[in-house]
Amino acid sequence: MDNKIYFDTETIDRLEKQQRVHLINSLGGFKSVALVGTSDTHGKTNLGIFSSFFHIGANPPLIGMIFRPSPPERDTMRNIVDTRFYTINHINESIYKQAHQTSARYDKDISEFDVTGLKTEYKNNFFAPFVAESTIQLGIEFREKIDISLNNTILIIGEIIQIYIPEDCLHKDGFVDLEKANTITCSGLDSYHKTVQLDRLSYAKPDKEITSLLQN
Amino acid sequence: MDNKIYFDTETIDRLEKQQRVHLINSLGGFKSVALVGTSDTHGKTNLGIFSSFFHIGANPPLIGMIFRPSPPERDTMRNIVDTRFYTINHINESIYKQAHQTSARYDKDISEFDVTGLKTEYKNNFFAPFVAESTIQLGIEFREKIDISLNNTILIIGEIIQIYIPEDCLHKDGFVDLEKANTITCSGLDSYHKTVQLDRLSYAKPDKEITSLLQN
Repeated sequence: MDNKIYFDTETIDRLEKQQRVHLINSLGGFKSVALVGTSDTHGKTNLGIFSSFFHIGANPPLIGMIFRPSPPERDTMRNIVDTRFYTINHINESIYKQAHQTSARYDKDISEFDVTGLKTEYKNNFFAPFVAESTIQLGIEFREKIDISLNNTILIIGEIIQIYIPEDCLHKDGFVDLEKANTITCSGLDSYHKTVQLDRLSYAKPDKEITSLLQN
Repeated sequence: MDNKIYFDTETIDRLEKQQRVHLINSLGGFKSVALVGTSDTHGKTNLGIFSSFFHIGANPPLIGMIFRPSPPERDTMRNIVDTRFYTINHINESIYKQAHQTSARYDKDISEFDVTGLKTEYKNNFFAPFVAESTIQLGIEFREKIDISLNNTILIIGEIIQIYIPEDCLHKDGFVDLEKANTITCSGLDSYHKTVQLDRLSYAKPDKEITSLLQN
């Protein structure tokens, strides 16, 4: 088809460090991006942007994320392991610049809530702070930590124990209209995107034509 | 803010099974979605759609994905473990219906390439088949299998050893313009979306205003 550039292991290795980081971070496709809210054992809040979330299973409802051993991710992970509770807060078009700013390396005693102006929200006895401006909010309980020795990263698995969704974004069949909730997606390290739905497709079966689930 | 529905563990548990599956699959946000191409040890091809990819690290370039123990995911995983090579092929607007169709439970001796009409492409001595119609293609070598005992799923980690990107989608700093490559994203089990870039933002630092990296 079109003219493609080809990289193999050798040409990947020869890339300048930041080029390689941008390239490899882009290749997985569009990513889930959200703000993770935690508190330390003294109640000091922390907020960080992450783009490594993935669905692990619906029963129990499990969500995974990857942590690097360096700051600022390290502080979020320590709070999760120490206190067992964290929030995942979807990012919408109104707050994505503030969300991006949380990736700066602030001192441990500075709360990213304070510097970005995003507001903490506490509800239903959940220990960790939600982001008040976030449209879809999840309360997560820590379940398991798995070390990935290949590159010294860590997989944290949590169970979704609280869910907050705008009423008009939840369909009868359980589907959540993320686009209506203004949830955005990201690519690479720094690119943010809103979405335009192409279709919802029927459950695929052999020898059966796929149909649209949307009513026109 | 708006009227939100609240679910806790009890109300999640009371959901009908398919409702719960749709709901929980939606909550992580927009997802990477791509076609995984494999062959078995006899060279019989297999193609499956997955939406559980995540970046693990840039050096070495590692990508992870989650497998359920049931078909059709089981066939893809067996091929990966047996032959050590697989391809990840981005999905664009022209092929997303065919891509969705690969999620049907075909007999093991039927190739999803044949039933969907998507074409195999072999190049640079890579063992597994690429999808010819895919704009961004990755050749992956299997590195590690980690069992997640919490819910009987499996994390497969691979190293990106071949990359094919359209020339005009690769920026000088290594960033890949997925939107220009027509790569799409998905949400929930069956909703597909194209994207509209909001911005690329500068590297965040404390006490420094974020700026746009886009030239207007």
